[in-house]
Amino acid sequence: MASYLVTGCSRGLGLALITRLATLPKTEVGTIIATARQDNSVRLKEIASASSGRVQMVKLDVTNESSVKEAVLAAEHQLQGKGLDYLVNNAGVSDWDNLNETFNVNVTAPHLVSRAFLPLLRKGEKKTVINISTTLGSIAMADAFRALPTPAYKITKAALNMLTVQYAQQYADDGFTFLGISPGWLRTDLGSHRADLPVEVGAEKVLDIIQEVTPEQNGKLVNIHIPGWETREGPNQYDGKEIPW
Amino acid sequence: MASYLVTGCSRGLGLALITRLATLPKTEVGTIIATARQDNSVRLKEIASASSGRVQMVKLDVTNESSVKEAVLAAEHQLQGKGLDYLVNNAGVSDWDNLNETFNVNVTAPHLVSRAFLPLLRKGEKKTVINISTTLGSIAMADAFRALPTPAYKITKAALNMLTVQYAQQYADDGFTFLGISPGWLRTDLGSHRADLPVEVGAEKVLDIIQEVTPEQNGKLVNIHIPGWETREGPNQYDGKEIPW
Repeated sequence: MASYLVTGCSRGLGLALITRLATLPKTEVGTIIATARQDNSVRLKEIASASSGRVQMVKLDVTNESSVKEAVLAAEHQLQGKGLDYLVNNAGVSDWDNLNETFNVNVTAPHLVSRAFLPLLRKGEKKTVINISTTLGSIAMADAFRALPTPAYKITKAALNMLTVQYAQQYADDGFTFLGISPGWLRTDLGSHRADLPVEVGAEKVLDIIQEVTPEQNGKLVNIHIPGWETREGPNQYDGKEIPW
Repeated sequence: MASYLVTGCSRGLGLALITRLATLPKTEVGTIIATARQDNSVRLKEIASASSGRVQMVKLDVTNESSVKEAVLAAEHQLQGKGLDYLVNNAGVSDWDNLNETFNVNVTAPHLVSRAFLPLLRKGEKKTVINISTTLGSIAMADAFRALPTPAYKITKAALNMLTVQYAQQYADDGFTFLGISPGWLRTDLGSHRADLPVEVGAEKVLDIIQEVTPEQNGKLVNIHIPGWETREGPNQYDGKEIPW
């Protein structure tokens, strides 16, 4: 009965992850903490209301250190003395006109949030931090994504991948696992309606990976796996494999 | 007789690059524009004074868009109608306590500076932009640099490498070359006295690469070459080869 905290849950992949987690058996998934910058997401409130207390909403601006500290206290309260098993750094943006702010949200925020939740994670069984990244952040694959005009996203996700590796190295000996996951190109506000997959499929596949994480994956970046998509034309082969840097 | 503009010239590698450029024959190197945030570097002033007008100092805060615009006008004036051949984005910092500001200087600034100098570079013969990066920014080599506690530097230089690739893709068809160079571990304020090489050696080797740049190197990251160091123990093999991402 593992506990989860996911950031950026008002919409998109974060909302889909919470929605999916709330359907999983209570033998597998315990407390689900859904954080969002604003607490005005109608859909998130509906899921929380229907969850019989399993889904807890916590207000969290991931870019604000005092908000992060308050969220740690709120999570501690909700976990009732237990540790946190899985932290999922999901909140993300893409804005080429504000590269610094994109970095702040996509890289500095996962750093602040991970650092602040380390004590609660240390008390947990799984000690796992997931950074939601993307194949677009792979410099080795950049040729394949040449036509996609999202430089701020690519640049900051490359940086996020290095952040994942830095934490992985730092906390490996303490039993932590830091893993980057590329959730696929999903139909969200960020991914657009032209994307490959419904967001629900991305959320399911990401959770498949999270529930099977092993310490051997510490410091890696992995792709989701969708049977049949491994040999697809183009860069988005959802083969479940490690993604080159 | 190529023209150069180098950022961050008050000390360290930038100062050494200017010092070295000023010793090269006028048949190879024409106008040398040395920029620095403050115009109070005694050593830079000395080099400019002794250069018979070849080294021109321009005040430039690379993180400030209006300062960047003013520097473009000043450079345009000094180039007297000619284009700029080589832009070297060298200014850099490393501060884990201020990850956002490290990103601002190491990534957003090269973006702002490169973008602003594109018109002058377009008028130049070489159309070459060098981003001073590092093997420490290679995620593929991260295991080798595990013991070096400079996460902000590693994270932002990984991001800079992706920036280099983004510009390389965008402007390849216009004849531009964007190249990342790892100057080696140099004895500077940033590199510390424990570093491998005197800064003068790094500057010489970086200029060896710059003067031989070809369009085939567009979007790459290359190491300096020091004969004898190719088979050295440890990660810093200065073999002149492409560095993996």
